[in-house]
Amino acid sequence: MNTLGRIFRLSLFGESHGPAIGALIDGCPAGVPLSTGDFVADLTRRGPGANGTTARRETDAVRLVSGVFRGRTTGAPILVEIANADVDSAAYAALEDLPRPGHADLPAHHKSGGHRDHRGGGASSGRLTAALVAAGVVARRALEASFVAPIRFEARLVEAGGSADIEAAVAEAARLGTSIGGVIEGRVTGLPIGLGEPFFDTVEGLLSHALFAIPGVKGVEFGLGFQFAQESGDECRDAILARGGRCQRNVSGGVDGGMANGNAVCFRLAVKPAVSFGELRTVSLSTGEQRVLAMSGRHDACFARRLPVVVEAVSAVVTLDLMRLSGRVGEVVGASEGLSRD
Amino acid sequence: MNTLGRIFRLSLFGESHGPAIGALIDGCPAGVPLSTGDFVADLTRRGPGANGTTARRETDAVRLVSGVFRGRTTGAPILVEIANADVDSAAYAALEDLPRPGHADLPAHHKSGGHRDHRGGGASSGRLTAALVAAGVVARRALEASFVAPIRFEARLVEAGGSADIEAAVAEAARLGTSIGGVIEGRVTGLPIGLGEPFFDTVEGLLSHALFAIPGVKGVEFGLGFQFAQESGDECRDAILARGGRCQRNVSGGVDGGMANGNAVCFRLAVKPAVSFGELRTVSLSTGEQRVLAMSGRHDACFARRLPVVVEAVSAVVTLDLMRLSGRVGEVVGASEGLSRD
Amino acid sequence: MNTLGRIFRLSLFGESHGPAIGALIDGCPAGVPLSTGDFVADLTRRGPGANGTTARRETDAVRLVSGVFRGRTTGAPILVEIANADVDSAAYAALEDLPRPGHADLPAHHKSGGHRDHRGGGASSGRLTAALVAAGVVARRALEASFVAPIRFEARLVEAGGSADIEAAVAEAARLGTSIGGVIEGRVTGLPIGLGEPFFDTVEGLLSHALFAIPGVKGVEFGLGFQFAQESGDECRDAILARGGRCQRNVSGGVDGGMANGNAVCFRLAVKPAVSFGELRTVSLSTGEQRVLAMSGRHDACFARRLPVVVEAVSAVVTLDLMRLSGRVGEVVGASEGLSRD
Amino acid sequence: MNTLGRIFRLSLFGESHGPAIGALIDGCPAGVPLSTGDFVADLTRRGPGANGTTARRETDAVRLVSGVFRGRTTGAPILVEIANADVDSAAYAALEDLPRPGHADLPAHHKSGGHRDHRGGGASSGRLTAALVAAGVVARRALEASFVAPIRFEARLVEAGGSADIEAAVAEAARLGTSIGGVIEGRVTGLPIGLGEPFFDTVEGLLSHALFAIPGVKGVEFGLGFQFAQESGDECRDAILARGGRCQRNVSGGVDGGMANGNAVCFRLAVKPAVSFGELRTVSLSTGEQRVLAMSGRHDACFARRLPVVVEAVSAVVTLDLMRLSGRVGEVVGASEGLSRD
Repeated sequence: MNTLGRIFRLSLFGESHGPAIGALIDGCPAGVPLSTGDFVADLTRRGPGANGTTARRETDAVRLVSGVFRGRTTGAPILVEIANADVDSAAYAALEDLPRPGHADLPAHHKSGGHRDHRGGGASSGRLTAALVAAGVVARRALEASFVAPIRFEARLVEAGGSADIEAAVAEAARLGTSIGGVIEGRVTGLPIGLGEPFFDTVEGLLSHALFAIPGVKGVEFGLGFQFAQESGDECRDAILARGGRCQRNVSGGVDGGMANGNAVCFRLAVKPAVSFGELRTVSLSTGEQRVLAMSGRHDACFARRLPVVVEAVSAVVTLDLMRLSGRVGEVVGASEGLSRD
Repeated sequence: MNTLGRIFRLSLFGESHGPAIGALIDGCPAGVPLSTGDFVADLTRRGPGANGTTARRETDAVRLVSGVFRGRTTGAPILVEIANADVDSAAYAALEDLPRPGHADLPAHHKSGGHRDHRGGGASSGRLTAALVAAGVVARRALEASFVAPIRFEARLVEAGGSADIEAAVAEAARLGTSIGGVIEGRVTGLPIGLGEPFFDTVEGLLSHALFAIPGVKGVEFGLGFQFAQESGDECRDAILARGGRCQRNVSGGVDGGMANGNAVCFRLAVKPAVSFGELRTVSLSTGEQRVLAMSGRHDACFARRLPVVVEAVSAVVTLDLMRLSGRVGEVVGASEGLSRD
Repeated sequence: MNTLGRIFRLSLFGESHGPAIGALIDGCPAGVPLSTGDFVADLTRRGPGANGTTARRETDAVRLVSGVFRGRTTGAPILVEIANADVDSAAYAALEDLPRPGHADLPAHHKSGGHRDHRGGGASSGRLTAALVAAGVVARRALEASFVAPIRFEARLVEAGGSADIEAAVAEAARLGTSIGGVIEGRVTGLPIGLGEPFFDTVEGLLSHALFAIPGVKGVEFGLGFQFAQESGDECRDAILARGGRCQRNVSGGVDGGMANGNAVCFRLAVKPAVSFGELRTVSLSTGEQRVLAMSGRHDACFARRLPVVVEAVSAVVTLDLMRLSGRVGEVVGASEGLSRD
Repeated sequence: MNTLGRIFRLSLFGESHGPAIGALIDGCPAGVPLSTGDFVADLTRRGPGANGTTARRETDAVRLVSGVFRGRTTGAPILVEIANADVDSAAYAALEDLPRPGHADLPAHHKSGGHRDHRGGGASSGRLTAALVAAGVVARRALEASFVAPIRFEARLVEAGGSADIEAAVAEAARLGTSIGGVIEGRVTGLPIGLGEPFFDTVEGLLSHALFAIPGVKGVEFGLGFQFAQESGDECRDAILARGGRCQRNVSGGVDGGMANGNAVCFRLAVKPAVSFGELRTVSLSTGEQRVLAMSGRHDACFARRLPVVVEAVSAVVTLDLMRLSGRVGEVVGASEGLSRD
């Protein structure tokens, strides 16, 4: 299912080399100020940067097809469309028969009974993260316009190729013609205490569910995460300092028993390096023979650098849905009691 | 929401010190052999072991209230009830006002407007993992009875307190009166290639969503996971060896582009140590004053040891749902075409 | 799927001749006063009355297994169990091979691959309407306890066997040893204007979806309903009298464009007569031969009389879910802003 | 929520006078032949006919933005877009302040906190039934391409303004400058026995839920429907003639206990007449004063005539979802076992 959320619901569509990609967003409150200009900053952050990143130029202008009237959301479904401008499918012809290791190519081939769109990763392309970013913009605008205390979403790359000196590590990888992965730290502040559910719809479960949709993410941990496994109970104990839940160390990363506990929600993501460059060993889907696929052209030396804005977007989408589920954000913003009254 | 899944759907209920806990399981195919005896082995594996674990005695006999007739499932909802036998609520009286750090106590208090059942963790208790295990039994029986290739679920504790010598590490923690966490490795073999969806309902997303429902789990990684963040693209590249997807190294942990890629699905979980023993610093919910809560009695030196069976159960529940969503498991097992025909 | 609703969610379980039936209710706000005594009045209304109704004696005492603590809901899932007291399965032995026309017997046989519980209708029995009634009690208590304007649910049998003189018609049917159906009118007042969605989750769609779960209901109409098909636009035109939506005639039955329009929601249900008495023509499931099934014993002369309380319950369940979806009812009742604040 | 279905899922978007309307369709099997030409016939059937219908010219060419590659579906979400060609918003300016009785105008105003798109019914417009029709085309193509026995969907207007002579009745209404409603009979043949669920997801409940999304539908009945309420049990009794479920009279309309019973599923819909012509009594949303709204221009003398194709489409959408839920239609069509195998 290509839909996330229960009330604030996000569905993606589109293929890397089709006419457009985008998002259908349902359950956004009415009355949220929204225009195409709101999307520019975040989509630019996601776009290709200066050194070491892909040469593909994506203008990523959004088209608001529905759900917005006179500069405000109406509560009706919002269709955000982003045209695919710079499409060069020829470079991908070989991938039809030769799936790249570490990519969706082979499972997508089987899943679709051979009917996938193979060009540029098709429906599995990282290109669709632009739609995630667009949805994050809507979610943040809706949270800002609602009568709730401010909720902030921050993510940043804290480590690349094992080093905290990101720029140096990326430059070195680019120089060597290779690529590196990284660790992204995410932080959500301002969540009301008690948000989330004890079983299944835990804050950790909902966030990780959504974050694993970001191509390249292979691990998620909260608070001390894997470090917990090394420590004893004495060492990783926390102390509650105030009724509002403030803890001394926040070892739980802001979530206890699946619910926001009054501290910042802190998580870390493992992002793998790009692997599709140089010569790749694979098989022919038509003949089954082992083959070498020579990749030419562009690859990101560290595509993890482009993901923090996506992580923030996904966090905002999950949060708005939780806020709607709990009743803290209703159908209309701007009404004095959170909802229009008759 | 206390429900997991879309077709094979699992809902939990019950509190640690109420009359019973259990699971309501909807969407199980009809015709699966099932009796109360099927639950004994796994519930025993979850139960308290010999050294260092909690003294609570849970007989954990299940009652099949509905959905089973003449030893087979009927396709109707299955209610599995497990009575709470050994309940000593008195020991928990102090927790009503003094929430334990690192537990659901404080967020549950706020979430419920002060109306939570505080006894023994209430609805957030690890006790409910018995219901997860019961659901896993049903899921595995259903998969075994369906006309699909065998799917296997294995999980084991591979590291405790940072050491691979689990027994020694637990004995030492018990001797010191402390506790340790651990790392559990899970492995699912036999998934059809292409299971899972590119966006949102990725295998990683669905599994992590469910696994974070297990109390104490604070991190999930697939394949190389966080190690990916250290390596370069050259170092962590894989090779596809056969059309069926077999890879040389399986660095992706069996999932590419969100879909099963024909290799074993491999993941690792970070489990935190028990933290509620000795003296805990907290606040009074009624007065806001800082207090020390002296915990007496039992605690697990390493409750991670009890979780592999829960991890297997959760994996089986998620898998059966995916198999039903894809149409590989239908409404009835045992029919020659997977479904009864008129 | 045996679950109704998106936030306030109701799942049924149990078979007519199993140990118990009941409901698992998730998404009920915390803090709602609730005790077993609250269920007595409505379950008694549903129970067998004096003349002409079934002789089965159901005490229908509910057991609250979870989700209630110190007389209030906690927000955790509520398991309501109703034991099956008066079970005489022998009378149903013939139904295993001989399905009753107009009942679930035959489709349930095929759906389950022959593994259904055939006794007394099994999982399709009208007995499960007791669980619907119990859920309705919870929904009404939750609405009453929430800070929303009063919402009222009324349903009554307005016609039986084509006559408005219900008592006379039922007495005549009982005298003749036959049965009659009827028309139930339902009415929900106090819904906030705008509740419901323009497409798919219309008030009409959600109510009818739920109401068709009541065994015997075969038609639903809103406002003028089928009479609309006879009239011209001039004749069935309404007039809006006030900004709050009050209409002169309420021909739409309180719903326009799928949304509550500020008037009472008015609907009518067609209920069929009991058909399982005397001699029924059917086939043997094992041999395929045509057979006559002689029904002995009890049948309701007009079971439609027992349904108004069920209709009210179902309406309340649907309404609470809509109120939660819109954010008008949050996670906690009794908090000054509708939700507990940190 | 503007989404229907659980696996085959349909979401609508767009406003009558926005740039486009359409449907996002998720969960369509891969491998279904599909091209823009497939939509022409049904969209033409829905379009304005000769006499007595609206003068609006809609070319209704569809654009397949995603999910189709080389003439077949890929299993990825399908975005169908239909541009709004003939848009004359000026005629609707008065509706911003003066809501039409019997329309979504007033409840949509309140629901959106005043932020609705009022032009031509906005997001509640009957225009969106074009998107329903498009989704129906996809559903039917998918059913045809799947290895299941043929399922057929037929609907026709059997009565208009109380008369079976449709043409005469419509001509008379047009002559008088008024409008008439009608009764549509729908019929689905070929459903596998046992499709549907005993509680909540009954065939009746799912169909009616979806059918009430069609603007103007105000009643749904199955089999004898409201006539059941007039008859005695003797009179409306059926007989099962064969193990496959064939009944003598099919009084249940093909559904017993919520499940398809092996006979044609037969239902009837009440459609109201257009009411927005001439002078309408309403209130000003800004001042609350009572006003008369003079409607000029086009209205359908009997828009019920345009709905049979929509009814067929909705029936097909609901059916494909049920077929997927039951596992009878999998992720891929054209594979020998219904699914691609590794």
